[in-house]
Amino acid sequence: MLWDNYPEIKRKLEKVENIIERNLKCRSKPLEELLQTLSGGGKMLRPAFTVISSHFGRQWNDKIYEAAAGIEILHMATLVHDDVIDEAGMRRGKPTVNSIYGDKMSVYVGDYLLSKAVLLLSGTLPEDRLEKIAGALKSICEAEIEQFFSRFNPDVSLVTYLKRIGRKTAALFAFSCGEGAFLSGCGENVQRNLVKFGFCFGMAFQMYDDILNLVGDTGETGKPKGNDIKEGIITIPFILTLRKNAEFAKLARELMSEKTIKDSDIRKLTDEIISSGGIDDTRAWIDRYLQKARTALEPLPDIREKEIFHDIMLTL
Amino acid sequence: MLWDNYPEIKRKLEKVENIIERNLKCRSKPLEELLQTLSGGGKMLRPAFTVISSHFGRQWNDKIYEAAAGIEILHMATLVHDDVIDEAGMRRGKPTVNSIYGDKMSVYVGDYLLSKAVLLLSGTLPEDRLEKIAGALKSICEAEIEQFFSRFNPDVSLVTYLKRIGRKTAALFAFSCGEGAFLSGCGENVQRNLVKFGFCFGMAFQMYDDILNLVGDTGETGKPKGNDIKEGIITIPFILTLRKNAEFAKLARELMSEKTIKDSDIRKLTDEIISSGGIDDTRAWIDRYLQKARTALEPLPDIREKEIFHDIMLTL
Repeated sequence: MLWDNYPEIKRKLEKVENIIERNLKCRSKPLEELLQTLSGGGKMLRPAFTVISSHFGRQWNDKIYEAAAGIEILHMATLVHDDVIDEAGMRRGKPTVNSIYGDKMSVYVGDYLLSKAVLLLSGTLPEDRLEKIAGALKSICEAEIEQFFSRFNPDVSLVTYLKRIGRKTAALFAFSCGEGAFLSGCGENVQRNLVKFGFCFGMAFQMYDDILNLVGDTGETGKPKGNDIKEGIITIPFILTLRKNAEFAKLARELMSEKTIKDSDIRKLTDEIISSGGIDDTRAWIDRYLQKARTALEPLPDIREKEIFHDIMLTL
Repeated sequence: MLWDNYPEIKRKLEKVENIIERNLKCRSKPLEELLQTLSGGGKMLRPAFTVISSHFGRQWNDKIYEAAAGIEILHMATLVHDDVIDEAGMRRGKPTVNSIYGDKMSVYVGDYLLSKAVLLLSGTLPEDRLEKIAGALKSICEAEIEQFFSRFNPDVSLVTYLKRIGRKTAALFAFSCGEGAFLSGCGENVQRNLVKFGFCFGMAFQMYDDILNLVGDTGETGKPKGNDIKEGIITIPFILTLRKNAEFAKLARELMSEKTIKDSDIRKLTDEIISSGGIDDTRAWIDRYLQKARTALEPLPDIREKEIFHDIMLTL
């Protein structure tokens, strides 16, 4: 597991996991079984970022565990709702709620998790911080809705894509770092740098995920290769290839206009992206954001936890 | 319109509607168009209950408008998510989000509304009240999940049903009254009585809705007659008929075990419910809860708004 090398963080994440599990207990037996299948199996990156960020503050505060748990539950809620959208059958190596009970159930399980997250976070954060988390949720929804309306439009610009993933993914990483920094009493500058670090890491993280969706191992990603293309979702490797390969652009526009793309055409598009260097170009963008993330960390004190952030960046 | 007879309430509800409309404005054009189709057309019962309850307090407080708007937006969110569940084509006389864009879109539009509701309410309510609204949302989800797992089980008990509708419907009415009372500075006793009134009214309201689902005019309810039975959702007229009509019980168990019920069988079950007095018996339960609601109002000062509550009870 990712955290085995960092016993202090691992120990704290176990406490966070206990809080999550305790919060997934409920009166309804079938619901509880369902919720148990959701917990575990994730990398717990977001709560880890809260915990790690809190080490830059002056004092430890037990509310940090609860805030971290609330953030992970919020993330789980968005995953459950994403699976409705993606018609995904597997998530974190387990069958999804919607593959067992259908979309109807996923909607309410996701809402239930959202209410649990708000309950946990409203107990730990002052009012104005809670507005931030509602703002983060709003961002995520706006991004998903924009993405939905942009499906099968091959001419989505890089700027639109960057804004979208900023809202969809990076905002929650930024929030995760920010809350750890805030609750541990970091000064404003340190808070700002950690938020910036979280945001830039989140951008790189999503781009990496978009590469995996194209060329990753289905066993690991849990999704069929090229699933984004199949759904008409245009991501950065696609956008960068479109810019420099006129033949790809022509083929892509043709296929996207049909709105259903055969598996053989997905492979054709993917091969073209790879051979045109679309993956390498995306890699360069990932490195650019990781560099920004490093720059944000630079002014922070050289504690052990700074190294952990650097280590995690190497996993992308 | 329901509020035409109460100019003061109507005027305040118009302010609430303005806040709702302002909050449904957003950067995304297609999303904004979608959101506009959702607003208006509802009876605004829940925000009206907040406004009316606030008249029992010592001072008016402009935050009451925002709280009322937040509550209505929360309710709209649950409607949008309900429509995924119900595969409903019409709501409030307009096509539903999911009938236009599919379930995928409904999930995010509902989440977006939830985040907006939390944003509005976190700006108006102190932290511990916000926990109440998250608690109300959690209740609603628990009830819907319980309802889902009880589908096609004709032996759902009356107690299970009453608990379910308490969580699904009555809790939000109770919250609506409670927030108006709280924000206007009502004393604890008055707050408690208004919460109790809201809860009992909500119970009666849901039972009335369950009757309408069976025998109401499709044009008004927006749903095909007997939709609950079709979906395997067992409501009070069904439960009360099952208790006293053995023939109905036999037929119901037989049909429910199939999990798909033909339209002609829905009609057969409905006719049996009507002829056995299932509707009248439900009416008696509605009256019982309305009586409880009246009892809760009794100790409150005899202001004009108390009469309005009495008038609204007569619409059920």
